[in-house]
Amino acid sequence: MRMYDVIAKKRNGEPLTEEEIRFMIKGYVKGDIPDYQMSAMLMAIYFKGMSDEETAILTDAVAHSGDMVDLSPIQGVKVDKHSTGGVGDKTTLVVAPIVAACGVKVAKMSGRGLGHTGGTVDKMESIPGMRTVLTEEEFFQVVNTAGLSVIGQSGNLAPADKKLYALRDVTATVDSIPLIAASIMSKKLAAGNDCILLDVKTGSGAFMKTLEDSITLAEKMVAIGEHAGKRTMALITNMDIPLGSLIGNSLEVIEAVETLRGRGPEDLKSVCLNLAAGMLYLAGKGSMEECLALAEGAIADGSALARLIAMVEAQGGDSSVIKDTSLFARAAFEREVKALKSGYITHMNTEQCGIASSLLGAGRVTKESVIDYTAGIALKKKVGQKVEEGETIALLYASKEELFAASEEEFLKAVTISGQKPEAEPLIYASVTKEGVRRLTK
Amino acid sequence: MRMYDVIAKKRNGEPLTEEEIRFMIKGYVKGDIPDYQMSAMLMAIYFKGMSDEETAILTDAVAHSGDMVDLSPIQGVKVDKHSTGGVGDKTTLVVAPIVAACGVKVAKMSGRGLGHTGGTVDKMESIPGMRTVLTEEEFFQVVNTAGLSVIGQSGNLAPADKKLYALRDVTATVDSIPLIAASIMSKKLAAGNDCILLDVKTGSGAFMKTLEDSITLAEKMVAIGEHAGKRTMALITNMDIPLGSLIGNSLEVIEAVETLRGRGPEDLKSVCLNLAAGMLYLAGKGSMEECLALAEGAIADGSALARLIAMVEAQGGDSSVIKDTSLFARAAFEREVKALKSGYITHMNTEQCGIASSLLGAGRVTKESVIDYTAGIALKKKVGQKVEEGETIALLYASKEELFAASEEEFLKAVTISGQKPEAEPLIYASVTKEGVRRLTK
Repeated sequence: MRMYDVIAKKRNGEPLTEEEIRFMIKGYVKGDIPDYQMSAMLMAIYFKGMSDEETAILTDAVAHSGDMVDLSPIQGVKVDKHSTGGVGDKTTLVVAPIVAACGVKVAKMSGRGLGHTGGTVDKMESIPGMRTVLTEEEFFQVVNTAGLSVIGQSGNLAPADKKLYALRDVTATVDSIPLIAASIMSKKLAAGNDCILLDVKTGSGAFMKTLEDSITLAEKMVAIGEHAGKRTMALITNMDIPLGSLIGNSLEVIEAVETLRGRGPEDLKSVCLNLAAGMLYLAGKGSMEECLALAEGAIADGSALARLIAMVEAQGGDSSVIKDTSLFARAAFEREVKALKSGYITHMNTEQCGIASSLLGAGRVTKESVIDYTAGIALKKKVGQKVEEGETIALLYASKEELFAASEEEFLKAVTISGQKPEAEPLIYASVTKEGVRRLTK
Repeated sequence: MRMYDVIAKKRNGEPLTEEEIRFMIKGYVKGDIPDYQMSAMLMAIYFKGMSDEETAILTDAVAHSGDMVDLSPIQGVKVDKHSTGGVGDKTTLVVAPIVAACGVKVAKMSGRGLGHTGGTVDKMESIPGMRTVLTEEEFFQVVNTAGLSVIGQSGNLAPADKKLYALRDVTATVDSIPLIAASIMSKKLAAGNDCILLDVKTGSGAFMKTLEDSITLAEKMVAIGEHAGKRTMALITNMDIPLGSLIGNSLEVIEAVETLRGRGPEDLKSVCLNLAAGMLYLAGKGSMEECLALAEGAIADGSALARLIAMVEAQGGDSSVIKDTSLFARAAFEREVKALKSGYITHMNTEQCGIASSLLGAGRVTKESVIDYTAGIALKKKVGQKVEEGETIALLYASKEELFAASEEEFLKAVTISGQKPEAEPLIYASVTKEGVRRLTK
């Protein structure tokens, strides 16, 4: 078999066989197939797409390029959650404890943030002493005792995806739905859970900018998961509005804890309850409505917060900051951002909010950047609210005063104020399972 | 400027600017732009194409990546000829002497053959003593005195094309009309002639398999040539029939000489007269009809043959083999190929004929192969002719008897014999100039 012929076949719009796809991934990881042939193939896939069958095989081949985690030492049903990333997304820190409190195990490997979106692992590391690198045995132990564990992603999970993603990133072939789906799902399959709940974000702050693209991506990923024998569901959630009011690492842990105490912002709470319900539903805990009630109960009776504290302690973290969030280190400086004019906030570009937060030190600009866990943004006004010229709409936090100017400029660009009150946007647009797409009005 | 953005722009179907195209070619030749980005770009061009404007700029950028030959030391109008290659194509050896005999200079750099198509330079080297590597001064001198010179292509002509072609060849991006047009024309622009006659072959033995693709390619190349200020014309010629009856290096020189003596096969003679007339027309020697008459006159009065002899002698060759072709070295062995059944020859796959000839030693299988100048095929029957089972349809020539078996098998695969007499196919389908396409019935 020659890579040339496989490229030509895809270029001509013919479906690739299982043998061809596995040959291509194996050869690429081994170095037998050079980057320049793979990038031509990726561009051909960009234009010609891949069937569900082809995408499922590609995903499986990429997953099998490295370790396949065996979670069988963990008792019970294990449910994974994946978010396509977004600004101010602290849902894992709320959802995983709720699910664990309802008796379903969460053994989650999470990524670090790069650019304007923060990673859950970075947020967790703002808790003093918290370990996010565990041995496999420690990881199983934490899940079996605390009910959940969130750690950094192991080095040899789907190495083909790492190599492919780096190539896509420099050849303008990232925006291909089958390639995105295969990339995400290969890591989920390798991570070894029984069920997968996907949070597919849509809107200006997200990877997928339109609802239709988000649904297509969700359908593709659900098809891959089910093809691999995992119960899989996707929720399409709104990323045109930053979730909650706090952006930044320790700031987001604080907001997650507040939400687990039943005092979190409504939007964040609502999305977290739905994600948790989805995970419980996949694990067979009842209908979506029954699972929603279970999730609400886990907040109300404090059992979810107890699970978070148990995990933090099991991973070496200082749980006193969770029990009393005022003990978290605070940024040395803060700056008020004032509205430039009066009116309603009609839009808040979450991507730009994320960049503004990164500029304060909360995100990584390069792989080597050191994160300032205390830096970030507290939104005082959100989309739909009325503001007066000169009124404070946000607080910026940083360790150096000179970081404020660039961040404030970026933040003000993110906010649109106009005379007319905008219509309220739904938080969750649709759910996607193997049974099909269910569009939700609220 | 970043190559990433240029790839994304082409991928999205937006036209590239002159600055972007020149940045891309300069960066690629310098090594600043890696192969894997260029191959993604080439695949994007495969799908999204290039406008005439973009293709003209690309061609110019590729041409200027190396030396631009200055032919001004040669007096008079210089006309180049290019053939998209084909099996048994010895037209240059007939056409260039005719054009020179009519007072128009031919200063031609020609390629070597690779695979199943032979190169003119290889054919010339079958003449004892013939030099095909000359200094620029010698080259000008030969053209000024003999009226023509054909030499091997210099090393630093359009080096970007060499690098791009090598990449296209392994990434399934060869079959893109703008890329083919830019590749061919960049070398023609760098070669410095005033006018360019393009012989675009169509059919099973040619690069372009369909007439419509051939016309599109011709239009693109004519647009590039005219855009660069060169008078340019293309003739679309038939490659479904091997031209003439002899395939192989010295065999094709012999057939060219026979044609210059007025005794060549009708098909070869007709195509050569038309190509020569096209070149004379571009050089301003009159209408196509007048130029055809000039070309016929140069054969009839022996002046064209005299030009060939003059060039051979000026380049150190032994002209006695031209004056008496029976003096050419002959192959040690010959083998008759007999018809497997009775009927009409309805098709002769020229690509397979070329492979059969290569298997006898006449072509290069790898870049390092040594050519046997005496090897080749003499067709005894051609398309349209009636044959009886067991009748000789061709003679194979080789220096080793063991080469016959594989070659004969390949040759027999090339020949289709059936009960019905096929319709005669035209030799020339169309001419293309900046005025448009003129389809020819004959």
